[in-house]
Amino acid sequence: MTTVRVELDQRAYDIRIGAGLLGRDTFADVAQPKARALIVTNTTVAPLYAQALQQALEPHFAEVLQCVLPDGEQYKDWPTLNRIFDALLERQCDRKTTLFALGGGVIGDMTGFAAACYMRGVPFVQVPTTLLAQVDSSVGGKTAINHPLGKNMIGAFYQPRLVVADVETLRTLPPREVSAGLAEIIKHGAIADAEFFGWLETHMERLRALEHDAVVHAVRRSCEIKAAVVAQDETESGLRAILNFGHTFGHAIEAGMGYGQWLHGEAVGAGMVIAAGVSERLGLLDPASAVRLQELVRRAGLPVEAPALPLQRYLDLMQVDKKNDAGNVRFVLLQGLGGAVLRAAPQDLVTSSLLAHGAIRDASPAMSGPGSPASRTAGSLAA
Amino acid sequence: MTTVRVELDQRAYDIRIGAGLLGRDTFADVAQPKARALIVTNTTVAPLYAQALQQALEPHFAEVLQCVLPDGEQYKDWPTLNRIFDALLERQCDRKTTLFALGGGVIGDMTGFAAACYMRGVPFVQVPTTLLAQVDSSVGGKTAINHPLGKNMIGAFYQPRLVVADVETLRTLPPREVSAGLAEIIKHGAIADAEFFGWLETHMERLRALEHDAVVHAVRRSCEIKAAVVAQDETESGLRAILNFGHTFGHAIEAGMGYGQWLHGEAVGAGMVIAAGVSERLGLLDPASAVRLQELVRRAGLPVEAPALPLQRYLDLMQVDKKNDAGNVRFVLLQGLGGAVLRAAPQDLVTSSLLAHGAIRDASPAMSGPGSPASRTAGSLAA
Repeated sequence: MTTVRVELDQRAYDIRIGAGLLGRDTFADVAQPKARALIVTNTTVAPLYAQALQQALEPHFAEVLQCVLPDGEQYKDWPTLNRIFDALLERQCDRKTTLFALGGGVIGDMTGFAAACYMRGVPFVQVPTTLLAQVDSSVGGKTAINHPLGKNMIGAFYQPRLVVADVETLRTLPPREVSAGLAEIIKHGAIADAEFFGWLETHMERLRALEHDAVVHAVRRSCEIKAAVVAQDETESGLRAILNFGHTFGHAIEAGMGYGQWLHGEAVGAGMVIAAGVSERLGLLDPASAVRLQELVRRAGLPVEAPALPLQRYLDLMQVDKKNDAGNVRFVLLQGLGGAVLRAAPQDLVTSSLLAHGAIRDASPAMSGPGSPASRTAGSLAA
Repeated sequence: MTTVRVELDQRAYDIRIGAGLLGRDTFADVAQPKARALIVTNTTVAPLYAQALQQALEPHFAEVLQCVLPDGEQYKDWPTLNRIFDALLERQCDRKTTLFALGGGVIGDMTGFAAACYMRGVPFVQVPTTLLAQVDSSVGGKTAINHPLGKNMIGAFYQPRLVVADVETLRTLPPREVSAGLAEIIKHGAIADAEFFGWLETHMERLRALEHDAVVHAVRRSCEIKAAVVAQDETESGLRAILNFGHTFGHAIEAGMGYGQWLHGEAVGAGMVIAAGVSERLGLLDPASAVRLQELVRRAGLPVEAPALPLQRYLDLMQVDKKNDAGNVRFVLLQGLGGAVLRAAPQDLVTSSLLAHGAIRDASPAMSGPGSPASRTAGSLAA
């Protein structure tokens, strides 16, 4: 087992990474022998790991309850969140109740937000069982639910007491979700660590095969990079925004396709390629590095083209994004591999990169169907 | 205009108290000329004061929007909260949008919680227009909505940037709501300041008549007491609980009657009398002081008896209260007038005080109707 510390003063916490952590006494630090625990999980994960976590927690709590939610991004909404509150209130759970998020990013985001709100805040622990959650969403305290008009629009910054990433749980993950997790790992290399990016180029096949040492290294290095950024800017007033590399475009893809059609990591994969395209067009990134990024995304099993939606739809969807700063859309861009900057980009360069990577050029104000080859020509666009 | 400072380090803020503040340039400190403001108010307050606030804010913001909610505690729920999110997202409001809560405690609690959650936190300002909100709920950062199984169960600690208490707005307040606000003023004297309690005994009639100098003094002294407590314990890990004097019983009354039947302040009025009864039975409060409290509550126009519900219903309702600490219900009790302690109380003393102040003794396990005189005998109860 290896440990990464997230340094946030009184809210500092450990991320424990290793194999077989659900079967060991990993949870003694958060024990509350007189209080209850509530495991929040979903119908896919519950049959696999809920029993193991239940047994691991029972020695440390007066009672361990479970709340099993439906599985999927489309359930990251208020009615489903409210089922957690129902479970807590039906059993008259008090302020010392600890919530355990057992599952992927959706379960982690919802359980964390429920913990932030229940009686104005109860402790919670992340037990991520997907690669994406282990390397990204379980770390840093961003919690939220979706609103019909925007993803993650309703939430809180609320830190867990502990994160336990058992890499053995990844063995039951569909390959598509392994790839989705790799998107965030690639992102961490791209924005902060060129050496790690190179290591990923060397080890991509081993990662996709879930070789233990490779996975532990990639999870640990990702968590270290994210923890260092979060420690400097917990509530995203500045630096933390670099973690959104690929996400402005990615969120637009997810919303444009309808939540749940593309996995978050898939959308981020294509989004990073588009953002690298903008970086290249602004002269921040050399063409060879943009190609390296696209190639690594492709080798991770991720899409490198956005879905074919009208260009204007993408532009509309990006206006409402949270990085929208009083009307000016700023993008996280690469300044060489391993470096990131936050910068407003001219709309023609954004448009050009979108068209180069799959967006459909609108022939007329009316919505056109799938673009003809001519309408999908890449390159610069006259305004 | 007088100012009370709430000392919370980076989150410190001012409470401005005086007459005609909506008509003056009170809001320059929170100006964001490139960002939007959203006034959240209700159908009762909007016709009275929304236009004045709109005009006061327009010089300081790029655009000032309004969201008018239905009026009443029964709307302090998720669907109504979501109307604030709808208003923000339909206009693509970004993270610099400032929310203004114009109204009473319900509007303040909901607007504050919406501000805490929207994009994981946007600034907000309290503009309380009821006495209860001016002396209590607008100060200290407690925000929440109700759940069918409990009041204020879903919320956040989230501080406003500024509180503006214009005492002129109290002139449109129904007398019943003036009395409800006086309950919290009496509470502040009872738990923290015997001299202020004595001042209230002298000035109660002037307060009920809303005489300017008396009201400003009472609002200021209440805010000072509350601010001092909140500054020491923002998230209610200890001391802050004393502000809940009368509230364990009060919340049980509100829930037992159905939210919105009794005003919060009315329930707190009767709740304080019952809590004083428990204090007296524990030997913490002399009988003369308990009588003084009951008399002041009565002179404020507030009920001194709880509504006639079965005793067991009260006991059930108090179990789920937030002050419930791993199964042991603790009460805020008076240790002399002007002092408060947090202590678990034997159930027979709680029962005795409830029966002395209106609860119906249950004759059998089946629910009885309104109690006979015999079943309502006050005094100690054999277990």
